[in-house]
Amino acid sequence: MTRISCPVLSKKITTAAQAAEHISPGDNVGMSGFTGCGYPKEVPGALAERMKSAHSAGEEFTIGLLTGASTAQELDGVLAEAEGVHLRAPFNTDPSMRRAINSGDVEYIDTHLSHLAQQVWFGYFGKLDGAVVEVAAVLPNGLLVPGSSVGNNKTWLDQADKVILEVNEWHPREYEGFHDVYYGTKLPPHRNPIQILEPTQRIGDPYLRVDPDKVVAVVRTNAPDRDNSFSPVDDKSHAMAEYLIDFLRHEVSAGRMPKNLLPIQSGIGNVANAVLEGLKESEFEHLHSYTEVIQDNLLGLLDSGKLDSISATAFSLSRPVAEHFNANAESYKGRILLRTQEMSNHPEIVRRLGIIAINGMVEADIYGHVNSTHITGSKMMNGIGGSGDFARNAFLNFFVSPSTAKDGSISSIVPMASHVDHTEHDVHVLVTEQGIADLRGTSPVTRAKRIIDNCAHPDYRERLHDYLDRAIAESPNAAHTPHILSEALSWHTRFLEDGHM
Amino acid sequence: MTRISCPVLSKKITTAAQAAEHISPGDNVGMSGFTGCGYPKEVPGALAERMKSAHSAGEEFTIGLLTGASTAQELDGVLAEAEGVHLRAPFNTDPSMRRAINSGDVEYIDTHLSHLAQQVWFGYFGKLDGAVVEVAAVLPNGLLVPGSSVGNNKTWLDQADKVILEVNEWHPREYEGFHDVYYGTKLPPHRNPIQILEPTQRIGDPYLRVDPDKVVAVVRTNAPDRDNSFSPVDDKSHAMAEYLIDFLRHEVSAGRMPKNLLPIQSGIGNVANAVLEGLKESEFEHLHSYTEVIQDNLLGLLDSGKLDSISATAFSLSRPVAEHFNANAESYKGRILLRTQEMSNHPEIVRRLGIIAINGMVEADIYGHVNSTHITGSKMMNGIGGSGDFARNAFLNFFVSPSTAKDGSISSIVPMASHVDHTEHDVHVLVTEQGIADLRGTSPVTRAKRIIDNCAHPDYRERLHDYLDRAIAESPNAAHTPHILSEALSWHTRFLEDGHM
Repeated sequence: MTRISCPVLSKKITTAAQAAEHISPGDNVGMSGFTGCGYPKEVPGALAERMKSAHSAGEEFTIGLLTGASTAQELDGVLAEAEGVHLRAPFNTDPSMRRAINSGDVEYIDTHLSHLAQQVWFGYFGKLDGAVVEVAAVLPNGLLVPGSSVGNNKTWLDQADKVILEVNEWHPREYEGFHDVYYGTKLPPHRNPIQILEPTQRIGDPYLRVDPDKVVAVVRTNAPDRDNSFSPVDDKSHAMAEYLIDFLRHEVSAGRMPKNLLPIQSGIGNVANAVLEGLKESEFEHLHSYTEVIQDNLLGLLDSGKLDSISATAFSLSRPVAEHFNANAESYKGRILLRTQEMSNHPEIVRRLGIIAINGMVEADIYGHVNSTHITGSKMMNGIGGSGDFARNAFLNFFVSPSTAKDGSISSIVPMASHVDHTEHDVHVLVTEQGIADLRGTSPVTRAKRIIDNCAHPDYRERLHDYLDRAIAESPNAAHTPHILSEALSWHTRFLEDGHM
Repeated sequence: MTRISCPVLSKKITTAAQAAEHISPGDNVGMSGFTGCGYPKEVPGALAERMKSAHSAGEEFTIGLLTGASTAQELDGVLAEAEGVHLRAPFNTDPSMRRAINSGDVEYIDTHLSHLAQQVWFGYFGKLDGAVVEVAAVLPNGLLVPGSSVGNNKTWLDQADKVILEVNEWHPREYEGFHDVYYGTKLPPHRNPIQILEPTQRIGDPYLRVDPDKVVAVVRTNAPDRDNSFSPVDDKSHAMAEYLIDFLRHEVSAGRMPKNLLPIQSGIGNVANAVLEGLKESEFEHLHSYTEVIQDNLLGLLDSGKLDSISATAFSLSRPVAEHFNANAESYKGRILLRTQEMSNHPEIVRRLGIIAINGMVEADIYGHVNSTHITGSKMMNGIGGSGDFARNAFLNFFVSPSTAKDGSISSIVPMASHVDHTEHDVHVLVTEQGIADLRGTSPVTRAKRIIDNCAHPDYRERLHDYLDRAIAESPNAAHTPHILSEALSWHTRFLEDGHM
């Protein structure tokens, strides 16, 4: 059965190459895609070819590229390699795009994931010229069945002058009914409360809308999402997961949390994966997840019966698990809801529901400032993603990282973070394979002692204490957050010079 | 007419000294007070005397002290001078308390103002043993008419085991009807949307409630709030206000904002004062304010007819203006609403209403990270206050500061902020008397150029450009946020060593 049953839109079916002709140099283009899922598979490649031809002819051809979050080689990769992007927001994990960002060729704007859609609507980025959005099907009335991510697609379709649709038959047709697209968003002063009271409560439509007059091309594809595999849970991740789950047990027994916890948000990565695996083995039941992304072990937790439901904005599955899901999609309906990232990450909802937020970090300093984005202060890793949306407004947040990196040459606990994405005001609990530090209701110096003793690697602990002690001694009248500024970043400069902190 | 007409509570009228007997060493005590208004005037002094006696007798006597925000000499001052506080949260401006914080004697927990009430309810601080709350009157049925600030009083009265009331006859009896105390707050997972759709919409009660059985003492006082005077608007503040108001004009003409703007939040300080004065002279009409604090010029803007209404959590008036207000309170009723700080600063409301947030800063770095709290990274000034609540969720935020301090020896624009309270992800516009830098939708390096060219003082501009240029040159593969870490904080260390950046 055809996936494009709208008579108006089916007349616009064309090739990726023809579709890409609608994108012009200098355009701002919103593309679908979130954590390697639901990104357009063919038009970006065709666009990259146009760009390379233009560059060969001595012509400029770059675009401003806005997405949901990370995409894949077929989008960020090909456009970065074609030197076709002058501006990029928000989150990125593609290595070619990362190189272009760090060479200074791409202006990268690292936005909170809940902020970008409204910022485009507010006009921060000027006009949105185009949108390239992957969907699973086009209904007879022109409504769109979203695919494996919703991301910012609602806003791109609303705001763009021209729309290109990719209809990807790899996505199960049964995606119809999995999505909740809230069309009640407005610009201030006309906004209303968002009436989400439970993680998987519906407040919107199962479909994306598009003005058919704006659709300039529809491209049929049949291509899988990126294979979002993780390495198996290692000892360190397992240890961190154990600390974290024990901490949750402790919170329940202290009466600070219900027995089935509160809705869980887990970022992407090995530790989140280990936590989800640990919860599967735990005594906890009737859990809920209100998160950005559904990775293998979150789906596994649902399969296990421990987790009742998931609200997210995207999948991010390994190929085998994605194929399993696609073959059995119908059986998940009603237990999984995919929303726009504006809603999945919305401060209003995160605070109301009382989310437990679990996110990775690059480093933390002894006073509890967290760096989620920059290697030695300058080099962009991926971006802040949704960690700020969730951590600031969470009931309880965890930042997790192994205590060392690069075979012990880097300590994840440093005297001063080389870049701050989450301030001391927003960080509740730090976790490494060494232990866990509860920072709630503590002052900077108390935090420092806990973080050093509980989280730092023993190889670095003594030197961190030494820094703290000397900083206190040298700051008799400035001992709130005692620093020796001439030394505060010396661990990073030592690493840059000698390869070891 | 008596202010204490409840037969049950009037039996508990006593002296401040007797009331203070109910507070024990080690107690956690929530006290009223926000920006120098509505704090208890007598019990803290009596408590300080008890503490001094205990200390003379070789006994320990300190408390954990939680307030709304800053109080005054009669509260923070006397308790700090008595060495009677071991823990303090959130915002403080009292010089004695600041000294105690910076000497390391007081553990200071610098919390977002919208977070503290829920954190106490969540159990971050353990049990709340006592509350000392100033009100304007006690009704026959035991309901309390709040005074010049609401702050966290609702939560202190709810959570504390023992309650001491101060009924201050200096506050106008006409305060009845000025407040909106929302009793719909719940712990997750039982929270509901907060139905504030307009700045001065009522969603709660005009009264505070207290379980009369918990009230251990009622103390009658008649004492004015702190005199919250500002120096007259100087040239620099005037220049900053002009830039800011012109920027608002530009946003309106670009169609990004309604003609009557959006609700304004203005922090405390000379620049906020100048902005409010500037708005009074401007063409803008039918303005609204959704803010923490009502200072002289905000009331003046209301008097001028330019501002239709104010929602806040406290007053912070100079003595003459406070006396004028007190004498004419009835005429302001319906145009001013005082809420709990949990509501005035709530992310849900701030984002929904689309606040224009205007806050001061200590320094910003070239990439747009803002330090609101720490002098040279270590020494606590006042605290983050509500700036994080508002800035993160604002439709548009401004951070303002003169470009230099201490006669030019300090640049407010530095290579790297010595402490970060607002990250690059959250800062929209910087303003100094040199000009204004619009950072929305820009990458770090673009931001740096704008901030240096528009906001830095000419005496420092060339050196900032030199730092940026060399950082870019030295970071070919890490040029997203180029830093020379060995130099990044050298401006601060130079100031500490030589007294000049």
